[in-house]
Amino acid sequence: MKSQRRSILKRLFASLAGVTGLGAVAQAKTDATPEKEVFNVTTYQDVPLFSGSTKHGNLIFVAGKGYHKEGDIKVHTDEVLKELEAELKKAGSSMDKVLKVNVYLHDLNDYKGMNEVYKGRFGSKPPVRTTVAVYGGVPGDSLVEMDCIAYV
Amino acid sequence: MKSQRRSILKRLFASLAGVTGLGAVAQAKTDATPEKEVFNVTTYQDVPLFSGSTKHGNLIFVAGKGYHKEGDIKVHTDEVLKELEAELKKAGSSMDKVLKVNVYLHDLNDYKGMNEVYKGRFGSKPPVRTTVAVYGGVPGDSLVEMDCIAYV
Amino acid sequence: MKSQRRSILKRLFASLAGVTGLGAVAQAKTDATPEKEVFNVTTYQDVPLFSGSTKHGNLIFVAGKGYHKEGDIKVHTDEVLKELEAELKKAGSSMDKVLKVNVYLHDLNDYKGMNEVYKGRFGSKPPVRTTVAVYGGVPGDSLVEMDCIAYV
Repeated sequence: MKSQRRSILKRLFASLAGVTGLGAVAQAKTDATPEKEVFNVTTYQDVPLFSGSTKHGNLIFVAGKGYHKEGDIKVHTDEVLKELEAELKKAGSSMDKVLKVNVYLHDLNDYKGMNEVYKGRFGSKPPVRTTVAVYGGVPGDSLVEMDCIAYV
Repeated sequence: MKSQRRSILKRLFASLAGVTGLGAVAQAKTDATPEKEVFNVTTYQDVPLFSGSTKHGNLIFVAGKGYHKEGDIKVHTDEVLKELEAELKKAGSSMDKVLKVNVYLHDLNDYKGMNEVYKGRFGSKPPVRTTVAVYGGVPGDSLVEMDCIAYV
Repeated sequence: MKSQRRSILKRLFASLAGVTGLGAVAQAKTDATPEKEVFNVTTYQDVPLFSGSTKHGNLIFVAGKGYHKEGDIKVHTDEVLKELEAELKKAGSSMDKVLKVNVYLHDLNDYKGMNEVYKGRFGSKPPVRTTVAVYGGVPGDSLVEMDCIAYV
């Protein structure tokens, strides 16, 4: 049932991305509200949906990232961590400045494989982490979704 | 199985709300710890359980909100967003000052319907967002639960 | 199926903890990046995996905590809350300074039992809370996992 779910999700997400323009990305860093900066706005039907990161004071919030291509949990974990790092850099931060990470696995059996790639990626003073599995609940058929809070 | 789960939850939550006084709401904004303000405290058996929002410095944290009446994902998304907005206003903030949103869907198939109502609701500089589905894991039979972090 | 999942998880986690050294804990509070302090670093294969808490400015982030022994939801809730409190104290904070809690239940039917132990534990001005159930998705066979954001 799980793999059936995943394959349905794969189709759903593919059609979402293709038909509706989800995934269209534009830089938005305006000065309307100077207390808040946003980066990498994703639109949906030409309307702002969510940002890749937001900045307030010296805090950075990064959106949930998944990996929507083939690969096992090690590949997905690696790619998702690279996506987080790219957003952090864009906002002027870095992996060693991350304070908190949330990890949503597709399957808890991937916990060990995720850890093997995850360990050490945030330096010697790692962020806190909360991990749960959601069994079919990660959008776009990703085996893992992660978000984080950091600082600059 | 999913709809069975939901109907069990519906009964559970109805009985919770009715019998135990969950949902009783009182304003609590005292000066015991001036660094922290709280709004809309929900009690359980006459003891404080959680707040609708908390404020520290210029950061605002809003509790997970669900919608516990009939309706499809568009109705539920709309009502949950209105609940978030009401909490934000009460704490002196607003939708365009939200930095991060977490979305917990009952069913990932509602992803598209949720997006159609969600888009644009936080203005042109939207918060980051993390979405997962929890398949029967949202309390009170809501099709979606959302919380957020904002500023004033 | 749920209890089968849990028993698989129990074995998985036991083997994880035993074989790989997950759970080895070391204090790390260096001054390499003075803006960030970390406490109770858990290593995995001798590499830093995550911290028990991180501190930036006056904000404290506490890692997701579970309870990996026998007991019902009341026992698990109580032990997890004690774990959160221990981390908060170590970082110079306390339960009444918590701003936001995330609760991940194994089973939504434990919602009421969790509340009965949870109520009042954070004082008269409780944090916001977001609760979902993840049905087999909490690592290490815990009936509940919680994390929090606080201040000092």
